[in-house]
Amino acid sequence: MKITAVEAIPYSVAYRKPLRFASGEVHAAEHVLVRVHTDDGVVGTADAPPRPFTYGETQASVVAAVTGIFAPQVTGLSVLERETARARLHRTVGNPVAKAAVDIALWDALGRTLGVSVSELLGGFTDRLRVSHMVGFAPAARMVEDAERMRDLHGVTAFKVKVGRRPWRQDTDAVRALRTALGDDVELYVDGNRGWTPAEAAQALRAMDDLGLTMAEELCPADDVLGRRWLTQQATIPQFADESATTPAEITRELLAGAANGISIKTARTGFTTSQRVLGLCEGLGVEVVMGNQIDTQLGTVATAAFGAAHELSARRPAELSNFLDMSDDLLAEPLVIEGGALRVPQGPGLGVEVDEQQLARYRQDT
Amino acid sequence: MKITAVEAIPYSVAYRKPLRFASGEVHAAEHVLVRVHTDDGVVGTADAPPRPFTYGETQASVVAAVTGIFAPQVTGLSVLERETARARLHRTVGNPVAKAAVDIALWDALGRTLGVSVSELLGGFTDRLRVSHMVGFAPAARMVEDAERMRDLHGVTAFKVKVGRRPWRQDTDAVRALRTALGDDVELYVDGNRGWTPAEAAQALRAMDDLGLTMAEELCPADDVLGRRWLTQQATIPQFADESATTPAEITRELLAGAANGISIKTARTGFTTSQRVLGLCEGLGVEVVMGNQIDTQLGTVATAAFGAAHELSARRPAELSNFLDMSDDLLAEPLVIEGGALRVPQGPGLGVEVDEQQLARYRQDT
Repeated sequence: MKITAVEAIPYSVAYRKPLRFASGEVHAAEHVLVRVHTDDGVVGTADAPPRPFTYGETQASVVAAVTGIFAPQVTGLSVLERETARARLHRTVGNPVAKAAVDIALWDALGRTLGVSVSELLGGFTDRLRVSHMVGFAPAARMVEDAERMRDLHGVTAFKVKVGRRPWRQDTDAVRALRTALGDDVELYVDGNRGWTPAEAAQALRAMDDLGLTMAEELCPADDVLGRRWLTQQATIPQFADESATTPAEITRELLAGAANGISIKTARTGFTTSQRVLGLCEGLGVEVVMGNQIDTQLGTVATAAFGAAHELSARRPAELSNFLDMSDDLLAEPLVIEGGALRVPQGPGLGVEVDEQQLARYRQDT
Repeated sequence: MKITAVEAIPYSVAYRKPLRFASGEVHAAEHVLVRVHTDDGVVGTADAPPRPFTYGETQASVVAAVTGIFAPQVTGLSVLERETARARLHRTVGNPVAKAAVDIALWDALGRTLGVSVSELLGGFTDRLRVSHMVGFAPAARMVEDAERMRDLHGVTAFKVKVGRRPWRQDTDAVRALRTALGDDVELYVDGNRGWTPAEAAQALRAMDDLGLTMAEELCPADDVLGRRWLTQQATIPQFADESATTPAEITRELLAGAANGISIKTARTGFTTSQRVLGLCEGLGVEVVMGNQIDTQLGTVATAAFGAAHELSARRPAELSNFLDMSDDLLAEPLVIEGGALRVPQGPGLGVEVDEQQLARYRQDT
């Protein structure tokens, strides 16, 4: 059960089309595959998706942090010494995605060692999650086409619509077009990626008041402290914090400041161990969560689904699990399937999926 | 891995001497042994200590809740479906001790099924906890003797002194006598079990200002809402909430009300699954915790130690693990040992301890 090595393998897989949203755009998944090896020959795997415009990490910084700092800190520990591993990783400031990947790979190794599913080890509440699909920036008609395709192909009935452009009217028009095309039974909510001022956000929310949105995420910058509180106080739908609340302490600050009343959990940045803490924090404070997507690959999506399905609160809302469909290829041996609007958590030990070595050889950038 | 039956066995073991404190006294451990059986022949075990004067539960109510309500709800579940079990148990209001015992027995069964220690499954931070000993009401000289005996026999150097009597001077005199006798290197803190008014508590704390106490617990009733806030605002040591904060929502209310700035975790009332949530809540809010004792038997103490040792925050302070020393006998086959001021978490699958069937036959009350 002892950890003997931790690898960090940079790789790149192109997206079919660039993903565009208020805080940036992404053309290829330039990620890092993290693998934890144990003396029993077990290998635990996780995907690290660096997001320079959100956390400041790059592909190179993740490789450097994992191989240079974290690998020596966890090598020699048992895969059961998770809290010791967490304490050691947290000696280093920042680097959330690198830390999260080491943590998830360690849990995967633990599950494989014990022969049980990580989702069950975490709690085992359910075996599938309803899927919410992210609709990115495009002319309104194309956004409607995208959503209809997801509904027709995969049965998806929950959509997170990217907003935050200026003037805001183009976004609210797009949301209205989606509601008209998809009907009232579909769940719609919006994500501003900090693109609007509080005043713009308030106007836009009022303009969408009749559209039955279930929530809004990060409409304004995190540093608009009083503006976000003002917006949240007047909003008639919950305001979810995502990139403004990436650690338990940040979550506490946002919630106690009245700047948000819902939290996005992303395993890509808080792993499983700290995500458990976030869940306890939110549940105890009486705050809803959504399982968010860090433009995850299939492997990242599996981690999100494993955690989300493990607990009642994290399984309640549709989870954001479909971004991998925009990738031109993937590392997993067996592709994930979204069917009937849901993703089934892969069964089998650990995360229940395997990396295809040929695919990895094809896309890795360090050889 | 499927649960086939849940037993609730009432039993009674006398204390060597009655335990006296501000909220009541206890002459015998009239507890309930809860056992979860699986179709693999695995048995998970937990101790349920009913506390009528704290939670309203009695030995009979615990037996009735476990056998009449909870057993049918969890029978048929896998031991990995913990969150489903938790959701079902929480359909019933109250009954924290009965619910906690079912949860702990389920974790014990899971650990035994997987062949690993529950403390490691929970997090595996450390394998031992420093012990804090509770010094109950007695004349000051006897309280000093009790503490000195614990120090000399077991190396204990942290003491929780029961206070809350009237007039408060007898308690502050006793604490002063303890500090004088034990010296400055020993950790002392106090527990009022809601015995004082806020005004009395403020006076008593001022009278002990030079005694280097590290914290105070439940000096006043939970319903003294503004009085507790007033006390906590002026106190120069943290005020820990225990019986006023027995669920995550109660903890949130006490902390946000400013009525407390530390939390006692008792696995006897929140089991392992909800205690994980409490830990996440407190860690995220930046609040310290102490592993408390519900006048636990050795089996209950093992559960407290397993959880406390699993995480950095819960392992930080000395844990209250020594009450079992006051019992005339116990159900465990191998007695626990406090040595060098610490308790080593039993190794081995599950909670790592076994109930002696002859002892159980001797003390059970249902045959």
